[in-house]
Amino acid sequence: MAAVIDVPPSPVRLKAVAAPGQPEPTPALEQLYRGFEQELLVPLWTEIGDLMPPQPRSKAAAHLWRWERLKQLAGEAGRIVPVGRGGERRAIALANPALGGRPFATPTLWAAIQYLMPGENAPEHRHTQHAFRFVVEGEGVWTVVGGDAVRMSRGDFLPQAGWNWHAHHNAATEPMAWIDGLDIPFAYMTESQFFEHGRDAISEAEQGTPERSRSERLWGHPGLRPLSQPADTAGSPLLAYRWADTDRALADQLALEDEGHPGVVSAGHAAVRFTHPGTGRDVMPTIRCEMHRVRRGGRTRAWREVGSSVYQVFDGTGSVRVGGQQWRVQRGDLFVVPSWVPFQAQCDADAPLLDLFRFGDAPIFEALHQHRVQVDAE
Amino acid sequence: MAAVIDVPPSPVRLKAVAAPGQPEPTPALEQLYRGFEQELLVPLWTEIGDLMPPQPRSKAAAHLWRWERLKQLAGEAGRIVPVGRGGERRAIALANPALGGRPFATPTLWAAIQYLMPGENAPEHRHTQHAFRFVVEGEGVWTVVGGDAVRMSRGDFLPQAGWNWHAHHNAATEPMAWIDGLDIPFAYMTESQFFEHGRDAISEAEQGTPERSRSERLWGHPGLRPLSQPADTAGSPLLAYRWADTDRALADQLALEDEGHPGVVSAGHAAVRFTHPGTGRDVMPTIRCEMHRVRRGGRTRAWREVGSSVYQVFDGTGSVRVGGQQWRVQRGDLFVVPSWVPFQAQCDADAPLLDLFRFGDAPIFEALHQHRVQVDAE
Amino acid sequence: MAAVIDVPPSPVRLKAVAAPGQPEPTPALEQLYRGFEQELLVPLWTEIGDLMPPQPRSKAAAHLWRWERLKQLAGEAGRIVPVGRGGERRAIALANPALGGRPFATPTLWAAIQYLMPGENAPEHRHTQHAFRFVVEGEGVWTVVGGDAVRMSRGDFLPQAGWNWHAHHNAATEPMAWIDGLDIPFAYMTESQFFEHGRDAISEAEQGTPERSRSERLWGHPGLRPLSQPADTAGSPLLAYRWADTDRALADQLALEDEGHPGVVSAGHAAVRFTHPGTGRDVMPTIRCEMHRVRRGGRTRAWREVGSSVYQVFDGTGSVRVGGQQWRVQRGDLFVVPSWVPFQAQCDADAPLLDLFRFGDAPIFEALHQHRVQVDAE
Amino acid sequence: MAAVIDVPPSPVRLKAVAAPGQPEPTPALEQLYRGFEQELLVPLWTEIGDLMPPQPRSKAAAHLWRWERLKQLAGEAGRIVPVGRGGERRAIALANPALGGRPFATPTLWAAIQYLMPGENAPEHRHTQHAFRFVVEGEGVWTVVGGDAVRMSRGDFLPQAGWNWHAHHNAATEPMAWIDGLDIPFAYMTESQFFEHGRDAISEAEQGTPERSRSERLWGHPGLRPLSQPADTAGSPLLAYRWADTDRALADQLALEDEGHPGVVSAGHAAVRFTHPGTGRDVMPTIRCEMHRVRRGGRTRAWREVGSSVYQVFDGTGSVRVGGQQWRVQRGDLFVVPSWVPFQAQCDADAPLLDLFRFGDAPIFEALHQHRVQVDAE
Repeated sequence: MAAVIDVPPSPVRLKAVAAPGQPEPTPALEQLYRGFEQELLVPLWTEIGDLMPPQPRSKAAAHLWRWERLKQLAGEAGRIVPVGRGGERRAIALANPALGGRPFATPTLWAAIQYLMPGENAPEHRHTQHAFRFVVEGEGVWTVVGGDAVRMSRGDFLPQAGWNWHAHHNAATEPMAWIDGLDIPFAYMTESQFFEHGRDAISEAEQGTPERSRSERLWGHPGLRPLSQPADTAGSPLLAYRWADTDRALADQLALEDEGHPGVVSAGHAAVRFTHPGTGRDVMPTIRCEMHRVRRGGRTRAWREVGSSVYQVFDGTGSVRVGGQQWRVQRGDLFVVPSWVPFQAQCDADAPLLDLFRFGDAPIFEALHQHRVQVDAE
Repeated sequence: MAAVIDVPPSPVRLKAVAAPGQPEPTPALEQLYRGFEQELLVPLWTEIGDLMPPQPRSKAAAHLWRWERLKQLAGEAGRIVPVGRGGERRAIALANPALGGRPFATPTLWAAIQYLMPGENAPEHRHTQHAFRFVVEGEGVWTVVGGDAVRMSRGDFLPQAGWNWHAHHNAATEPMAWIDGLDIPFAYMTESQFFEHGRDAISEAEQGTPERSRSERLWGHPGLRPLSQPADTAGSPLLAYRWADTDRALADQLALEDEGHPGVVSAGHAAVRFTHPGTGRDVMPTIRCEMHRVRRGGRTRAWREVGSSVYQVFDGTGSVRVGGQQWRVQRGDLFVVPSWVPFQAQCDADAPLLDLFRFGDAPIFEALHQHRVQVDAE
Repeated sequence: MAAVIDVPPSPVRLKAVAAPGQPEPTPALEQLYRGFEQELLVPLWTEIGDLMPPQPRSKAAAHLWRWERLKQLAGEAGRIVPVGRGGERRAIALANPALGGRPFATPTLWAAIQYLMPGENAPEHRHTQHAFRFVVEGEGVWTVVGGDAVRMSRGDFLPQAGWNWHAHHNAATEPMAWIDGLDIPFAYMTESQFFEHGRDAISEAEQGTPERSRSERLWGHPGLRPLSQPADTAGSPLLAYRWADTDRALADQLALEDEGHPGVVSAGHAAVRFTHPGTGRDVMPTIRCEMHRVRRGGRTRAWREVGSSVYQVFDGTGSVRVGGQQWRVQRGDLFVVPSWVPFQAQCDADAPLLDLFRFGDAPIFEALHQHRVQVDAE
Repeated sequence: MAAVIDVPPSPVRLKAVAAPGQPEPTPALEQLYRGFEQELLVPLWTEIGDLMPPQPRSKAAAHLWRWERLKQLAGEAGRIVPVGRGGERRAIALANPALGGRPFATPTLWAAIQYLMPGENAPEHRHTQHAFRFVVEGEGVWTVVGGDAVRMSRGDFLPQAGWNWHAHHNAATEPMAWIDGLDIPFAYMTESQFFEHGRDAISEAEQGTPERSRSERLWGHPGLRPLSQPADTAGSPLLAYRWADTDRALADQLALEDEGHPGVVSAGHAAVRFTHPGTGRDVMPTIRCEMHRVRRGGRTRAWREVGSSVYQVFDGTGSVRVGGQQWRVQRGDLFVVPSWVPFQAQCDADAPLLDLFRFGDAPIFEALHQHRVQVDAE
């Protein structure tokens, strides 16, 4: 009796079809394709249309998530899902409808609502994925980074560069929700991530609720570097960018426009980028974070760029256009702009302003000389 | 009668299970998960094990492709599959057995055998994906880059940085095969690629068969920069790294070792990296290319690093170990080393040497401050 | 009669002397030296001790200038020396006593007191030399940089990177004095400077007296970059660093020390560096500017470094040691620390603090890989 | 009787004169100037014309030194001046006629002829000043850098980045002369130099006479970096750039011009820059080295740039124009081009070529954003 050896079936499936640019389907071609399958080979000529398109053709969809509904579900999770070691965080991520049900807002970016009940602690850990928090409303939580307690309040942006120990604790009597942004999908796809557990609970001393973190006291003074600190770290040493500063910077730009001086990105559109105070570069090597303000009744220019972004409406009402889609938006709403899809925002005529927080993956492409932007693209 | 609106089913599927770190499966939890699915949300706590592992856990498999079999199939393709506009190239790519049948050698890298019959031309195009050619045997093809004809012969390495026009033509009477390496999967996943067709056929003048390309005459002199040329281009302006130089550099290192001087990477293991002569950096922003030589009976140290590599045996015989796998290898064999999987090579005691060509994605991680290497890892 | 050609006498003068390391003085040597002189040649062996010392041996002297006396002389100049085109500025420079009467505080740095009477204008010009203003006392002058009026008040630091148009006008009813720092000696020695006259008087509109300059409204927000502005300029786009920020940054460091956290340079010694907010580097390519604060009764560590510095006492009283010299100092006093000479400062026990403004040439040496620092050197 | 204290006379000397842009000479002004002198102060208004000219106005003169005469005097020095510890080197430096008899070819550059008799050794030392050797004729000397013996032959360029131990020994039966270039004047003026003695004599083993140095075996392969070596050193790790390579690179450029392809700097003018193979930058942080070739009967364009250069004619005959001066030149002749003085070279109609070695201080100005070039300046 003959021995039988199990050969696992090849995952490669090739089909000879009659199509432009394709070889004529013949028995010889079919036989060749069987050989390819057996040897785990795939020809370029059947794949090139998908793999090498004339310009980025995102798998991801433009999509909008409503903040009210997110908050509601997060609140329910707050009641029935505990926070602790293992699950690590009560974070609920946006799953782009075109990315197969995975918790990926875009092919490279993770965006989640995180929710902490009064008195709760999220255990300490660290990971090489870069992260940040942005607070669209509420207060009461402190993020403790390497022992430095950082207050979180409406409008604050807290970068959390990779491989820093961090925990969260809610020192208030109300639950608090905020958004987390990370490069989890990018790290996942490129298989470059490390993760470690820290202490299950941070010390009493670290659970203080200071108004200003130590990082702000060291790095939060415009143009001033503390001589004792290294400046060329990969991620920003400044752990909170306060709303008062951001708001004033945006207001200053619009006032300069009113006075006839340069400052705005385009008519009626002010914007700042959160930067590493020691290098001037993006706050983290893989994630760019910005705040945009559109003046009452104004609009941004339409533009598209290589790489994807997630926006959250911070304040005001207006409408946004992402490729062929258009939505009316208000506080807290989150939406995705896929790679090379045109984006434009407009502030309502009866709203004083439209403030949009944005994060994206542009630093990756700039570092690799692959970034492109096209303004007024249609 | 009630109106019926078609809601496309959500791609999100969540299941409450009893497991450590997971919330207790209850009807309330199930209901919450239905809400998540409806709103396109995925909690971190069900995914964290997969998404945020303690260290890179590659989806890709270590795998070996035999050159003899590749060449045979490519030869059959040469007989029945024409080369021309649309399919663009007679290139047949390695499909990692654990990556779903896609033509991805690793999650970021493309590796293919390309094959050109005597007199054939591959039409001109350009793309932002970075590419190179490496010739394990044969000769007779010229790659024409921006009008500069570059000879391809055994041992030659030809980088082809993104967005340069290029075509190939076989000026000889024999078919020729070589390997192409590109960052197609990386560009595909990050959705950052552009592609354009050029001329269907290059001019007669460009079909010359010069021994040395113009790029070599400008940039191929050690340490000498042509004053008339810009030096800080993204990819290397030197379009061919000739085997005679590579071979001599490796031999020099082993001779220095014999004389008791520094030079080798470790005992019996010489290696050079192909670099951009104008910047000293990797030849291309996303791909690192190296040639390694192991002395008769010697071995490399075992090491692992963030990011993946593809190796091709250039000469000699030996054995290689990739994680838990081990293969005996000979000329032309190709194999994959996934992210963070230990690798070690050994030259046979009766072979004069083992020469391994290697390409990998390390420049991506170095640019983003995510690179790690561990030597003597087990 | 023979023609006589005038040969200008050679500036080279060589003398054969009996000394260690020198060739024996002989007639042959004398004759050789005459040949050298004739041909404009100088041997290394007679010069090496001076040219190649074991470590920097500054030609410059440590020296102190008293502010009261400077202000008095500047005031007299204010009464009798007009300001206008040609002389350009009523600036009176420190002349290091060991640098031959030239207006060089150190071999690379210029430091001057500038003085402007009520209603006076200093005409517009620009130069490639980098400059700054620092205000030890007073107010009322605006420096107009490219049309942007920048207020000058006690404690403010105003960088003025090369090749920007600038003028000054005194909008107050009192004279005002401040110090100017420039790299004039460095540019002079390396012969790399350009200079252009601008308008004799700036426009009425530019003579406004805004509290905040446009540059501050664009760049004066911590960690926030205006998206519309280029970030990688050679010099800082932020034209004023206000005392309130500097003071708070220093106070924060000392408070952190009190709480047991990192922040100070050494016990009792806080310091910040003024940096380019778009790059994190020094405010100007050739000049480093810092503010140091020594706590009541405290002292800095002693250190020395390659390159020279000029200090001005901003506040408090104390004593400083520069090499073998020691001075008691108070507000406004200026002193020089030559290259590689140890420096240490001490705050009086009955003074609340000692604040020292410092500028130096370290960026030159860092850019050229020639910088060295030695802490606790004696 | 009153006590008398000796006050050293001030080096400052000021004289009130009637001149445009100067304050009117009055007794009050004279009294003010006496006060300035006493306090070691110099006003800007008397100095601005010299200190801040519209464009660089070099103190240095354009000047030519004839090689035959240099060699003759060096030969005489060879006979009567020993080489050894203390004097260190039998090097005889060009003293620019307008720089006061100091051994400075230009304000930043040192250029000397060094001469070694058969069998002589120059003792080991190291210094932070950057250095190089260039060989216009002869052979037989090896420079030993950190134990690596580097052959010196006609046309070879040997960079010697700062702080490397080095010695020389003449292994031949003839004397040998070559030129040394250093940044001694720059380091001297900026007071940034360190110097250490090494061994009085290097070991027998280090006195070998290898054809190729270890550095060349590691780094002398075009575009190939030895994996075992750090790449981002301040100075080049390649210790010899051989004439055969330089000659071929220049010939290639002229051949490309003949074929109608880019490559030459301008018609008939080929040029290469010696670069650090690990970074692509200049071979040393402060000195740029290049080889220029002018075709028979051809000429370079005229240009001027910030910073100074020294040229040595390597081969051929022609004429050079430096500002208002013009010289006919031949092998070995050395001349100086001061800052911002136009330069142009022309090859004789009956000479096959004119080869010019050039070194200059441009990297200093590029690093500090102060470099400017003007082509076709008159």
